[in-house]
Amino acid sequence: MKKIRLFTPGPVMVPEDVLLSMARPMEHHRTAFYRDMLADVTDLLRYLFQTEQGDPLVMTGSGTCAGEGAIVSAIHPGKNKALNINNGKFGERWGKVCKAFGLDYVDHQVPWGTALSADELNRLMDADPKIDTVICVHSETSTATLTDIEALAKVTQKRGALLITDCITSCGCMPMKFDEWGIDIAFTGSQKALMLPPGLAFCCVAPKAWKRIDEADCKAFYNDLKAHRKSLRTWDNPYTPANTLVLGLQQVLRGVKQRGIENVWKETRMLADATRAAATAIGMKVFSQSPSDSVTAMWVPDGVDEAALRKTMRGVHGMQIAGGQDDLKGKVIRIGHMGYMDAGDTLAVIGALELTLKGLGHKFTIGAGLKAAQEVFAKTL
Amino acid sequence: MKKIRLFTPGPVMVPEDVLLSMARPMEHHRTAFYRDMLADVTDLLRYLFQTEQGDPLVMTGSGTCAGEGAIVSAIHPGKNKALNINNGKFGERWGKVCKAFGLDYVDHQVPWGTALSADELNRLMDADPKIDTVICVHSETSTATLTDIEALAKVTQKRGALLITDCITSCGCMPMKFDEWGIDIAFTGSQKALMLPPGLAFCCVAPKAWKRIDEADCKAFYNDLKAHRKSLRTWDNPYTPANTLVLGLQQVLRGVKQRGIENVWKETRMLADATRAAATAIGMKVFSQSPSDSVTAMWVPDGVDEAALRKTMRGVHGMQIAGGQDDLKGKVIRIGHMGYMDAGDTLAVIGALELTLKGLGHKFTIGAGLKAAQEVFAKTL
Repeated sequence: MKKIRLFTPGPVMVPEDVLLSMARPMEHHRTAFYRDMLADVTDLLRYLFQTEQGDPLVMTGSGTCAGEGAIVSAIHPGKNKALNINNGKFGERWGKVCKAFGLDYVDHQVPWGTALSADELNRLMDADPKIDTVICVHSETSTATLTDIEALAKVTQKRGALLITDCITSCGCMPMKFDEWGIDIAFTGSQKALMLPPGLAFCCVAPKAWKRIDEADCKAFYNDLKAHRKSLRTWDNPYTPANTLVLGLQQVLRGVKQRGIENVWKETRMLADATRAAATAIGMKVFSQSPSDSVTAMWVPDGVDEAALRKTMRGVHGMQIAGGQDDLKGKVIRIGHMGYMDAGDTLAVIGALELTLKGLGHKFTIGAGLKAAQEVFAKTL
Repeated sequence: MKKIRLFTPGPVMVPEDVLLSMARPMEHHRTAFYRDMLADVTDLLRYLFQTEQGDPLVMTGSGTCAGEGAIVSAIHPGKNKALNINNGKFGERWGKVCKAFGLDYVDHQVPWGTALSADELNRLMDADPKIDTVICVHSETSTATLTDIEALAKVTQKRGALLITDCITSCGCMPMKFDEWGIDIAFTGSQKALMLPPGLAFCCVAPKAWKRIDEADCKAFYNDLKAHRKSLRTWDNPYTPANTLVLGLQQVLRGVKQRGIENVWKETRMLADATRAAATAIGMKVFSQSPSDSVTAMWVPDGVDEAALRKTMRGVHGMQIAGGQDDLKGKVIRIGHMGYMDAGDTLAVIGALELTLKGLGHKFTIGAGLKAAQEVFAKTL
């Protein structure tokens, strides 16, 4: 009965009662049972996205499915031009989506571990007045980097441009205020802060974005957001939904609302603060210059073999953490703070990290990481 | 504790042990655990599709997602022309996919409840030599109608055209022989014969289809089959997969293989035969002129209110059946034979149908449907 704990930045650990709730007998989706559930879930998603004016859509697929839906529905070939802010693997992906669909776009590369500022966005948009759409990742999972979407949205709002935001590892665990900030389309997935298995994705669409979407036919079918909009009237998804995951979603969202989303944001922040303090205390450096609270990336200390580190963490301690991607492969590790996770789990992963690093020859005072984390917890708990 | 039985043609009832197996603690998908499972599942899918040369791909989405993937990956704008055989709601949908992506296609309408013959296909292709791709639904769920794909594939093979087949309600419950018949791309979904919750879809791709797919870039991203092909080497899905459903899939496919797929085909046939015999015995007429074995559509008798019929079936007897779509709305009912269902369940739904029809004033000998079904079972069981 080896215990496995997931500290990957999605999929994350799923509450046991949610897992079991999804094992109830199958119900069809064209029934009052499902329609009532979808209506309830949609209301709860409004709370999650912090919106009254936005329409949350429930799609069956991974987060990429929702991102594609946002991009291909709102950017029309020959009519619009997008600026894609690429500061990591996911930023890069949205550029690839633009390319696949033959959209007019520029890919603006930002060094990994850093975020674009509002001033820089203003300069980029001044330089190319054709840009009427900005695509940006709120929390770039590959580099554990946060972009100040609130500041960027002020720029896009002022210029009347559309802001499409990947909130896959921010929505539900960090402040993300759709209406207040002025985001036009935000999207996320089920296997991150929503602590569900993968398979559902969500797009939240503001009236301004619907106006744009309605200006031309969508160049895709499955991910055409217009087809999904109808479900807001009929509570019938356009294509068969992953209905067992919707059961789990309802349960998670009720829990989030009951607890208060601000409290979830605070706890995630606390876990991230504790992990960053622990990393520093054991001689590891946080990678990002603008760290996100949903996941922490840290440099592997000199002389330590990253593959051996992750293998020991998993094999000996049952702790599944993530490595780096592309240029960061073998150089950083990533530890998530999302979902069904608390201070106890965070102590567990820090403890295992200390023991693993010690075994691999890294020099530090054993227990220093745990002490630093505990000092953070002591301020809040 | 009202018992609800699903006789809808998807989603279907899911075995209790499969539901519980999906409630095990979450595992990440970039692990040996998941990769081994995906490799095993891919082998088992080869058995399901009856193929050695075809590559089965596991996608996260509904069946529409896989159908879009097949169409947009294999039909290149300006290079290929498709003939879409439209004999129901799903045939109609594949035409809409072609339209959304701006593909060159003709939509050939066939009366609902009937199927295109090989002779007719030959004539259509003679009349338009540009057609190099045929899209056809094997079992059209909306009309419960079977098309002779084996015969159509002989035509496409002889002409060197590509045959894309929607096998959503045929694969796994009726004879569907990918290699032997010469299908080029077949696709299906998880919530039909595979008796899983919705959320996974599968495309099986023959070498000839890969050749076509490789001739140009795909005009979509999420459903680009080329991205999924890589997972056959690495066992990494291109985007986060619905991994709990893959757990259930492995269990179902092992069960199908252990039992022998021919035996599953025979049992589905038996349940369909029994239902058709029962319908006739109680004065109901089967709708289709070429009935499928996965679902039976039957005319609602004159004077019987279809809405009241389905309401009583569900409310009083706990039997969820399907109605008709579009022109058939209010005129037919549909009863599925796929998935976790046996003779006992079929007697249960026929029994409830008899009681409901009696209550709604339809004249017939009570028990006649059950007797007719039982006579079919007696020949086999």
